[in-house]
Amino acid sequence: MAGTDQTQTLPAQDNNSPAVILVSPQMGENIGAAARAMLNCGLSDLRIVNPRDGWPNERADAMSSGALAKMPPVQVFASTEKAVADCHYIYATTARPRDMVKTVFTARGAAADMHARDIKGQKTAFLFGAERTGLTNEDVALSHAVITIPLNPAFSSLNLAQGVLLCAYEWAMAADKTPARTLQTGDSFPVPHAALDELFVRLEAELEAHHFFRSEDMKPSIVRNLKAMLVRADLTDQEVRTFHGIISALTGKKAPKE
Amino acid sequence: MAGTDQTQTLPAQDNNSPAVILVSPQMGENIGAAARAMLNCGLSDLRIVNPRDGWPNERADAMSSGALAKMPPVQVFASTEKAVADCHYIYATTARPRDMVKTVFTARGAAADMHARDIKGQKTAFLFGAERTGLTNEDVALSHAVITIPLNPAFSSLNLAQGVLLCAYEWAMAADKTPARTLQTGDSFPVPHAALDELFVRLEAELEAHHFFRSEDMKPSIVRNLKAMLVRADLTDQEVRTFHGIISALTGKKAPKE
Repeated sequence: MAGTDQTQTLPAQDNNSPAVILVSPQMGENIGAAARAMLNCGLSDLRIVNPRDGWPNERADAMSSGALAKMPPVQVFASTEKAVADCHYIYATTARPRDMVKTVFTARGAAADMHARDIKGQKTAFLFGAERTGLTNEDVALSHAVITIPLNPAFSSLNLAQGVLLCAYEWAMAADKTPARTLQTGDSFPVPHAALDELFVRLEAELEAHHFFRSEDMKPSIVRNLKAMLVRADLTDQEVRTFHGIISALTGKKAPKE
Repeated sequence: MAGTDQTQTLPAQDNNSPAVILVSPQMGENIGAAARAMLNCGLSDLRIVNPRDGWPNERADAMSSGALAKMPPVQVFASTEKAVADCHYIYATTARPRDMVKTVFTARGAAADMHARDIKGQKTAFLFGAERTGLTNEDVALSHAVITIPLNPAFSSLNLAQGVLLCAYEWAMAADKTPARTLQTGDSFPVPHAALDELFVRLEAELEAHHFFRSEDMKPSIVRNLKAMLVRADLTDQEVRTFHGIISALTGKKAPKE
């Protein structure tokens, strides 16, 4: 039985980020996939209580895509109580408990709560139960709160590694400052207005010369709409040069600066 | 080769939620796991471009945990262009493109954008590339924007199904109204103040009678702290009755109403 208690022999994890504790996991593959999902999201304190197939586990190593080799050693415990001994606040991942009075978080709500506790020096932990059977009532009872991810009620069952991924992802996103939307321009740079205006003036003059505007009445609104389209495209300096090249090619006349 | 174009033979999906398009996926297991992740999050419009092992695929069925059987038939296409033909805005999931000018979303930013487009009747799609190789430059070029999930830069590679899960999860969460934190009280109900006050009064009287308060000076702050602890616990009516029972058991005196 590999459920040996290593609290005495292994140093504590040196980071204060949340522990992920897998209770009685059955398949090494799922442990490895959970480790990969953790490290994807910057978590590395993995603890296992009574793994069915012992530890270490070759299938876990293979499925972790190298994550287990890059993380501190996994700690193995004989009981959930020992695995959470140093944790100040424990979140059990489970469906809403019907017969216990418990605080219930979404994964996103829990992530915000964990970061707030981290700032105060508290160690937190996610608790995950065995595949299929989940956490025991005793494990839920010793947890301060429950995390229930509000998924499709008609098809809500996640596999273990996917549950770990969503919790770890929310933990990572709660501290992430990446803008929700940006324009990636690579080696180019958004064009300044003067260069865009120069393009407008040239385009309008060539369209005029080529009888594009059928009526003088309509011309102002057509020009406005063309400008709106080109401004909306967030053109770069390189793209404006390309556009000048298109006009030159189609008219046979070089741009003033070419 | 199973990459037959079914656009002519299959009716369009009847929901307007985002399509998930897997381009040249290699392993049936990953297609099945992606389908499961989609349905977990309420998505069901799965399209596949040139699956290596054909379609249908037994391994995909097995890995989907029943999701494929519950979803509308998967549509299979011979090219990405045909797969996205009815889509108004396409999000390529890939690392930030270095040599293309593209709008880059986080998965969360894309989800908000997709819902805004959905309200206007626009069909959107997530584009996922093959395992290991990812999307081609051509597939990225035909997409309106890129989704890059800001994960651990030292270990950011997600497997296909986990990438689908995070995108689909963010889409689901963008419309989810579940409170971030609630107290689940089951059959009980939070106790009203009067019943809690009755408990305070009884507890204080019994502690006084049993010489718990060593000095009159300290008593007010000790009582305040006890009250703070009990109020913070968000007791239910049942728990207040249990607390009365504890006092009765320890003192040998029944509560006034017992």
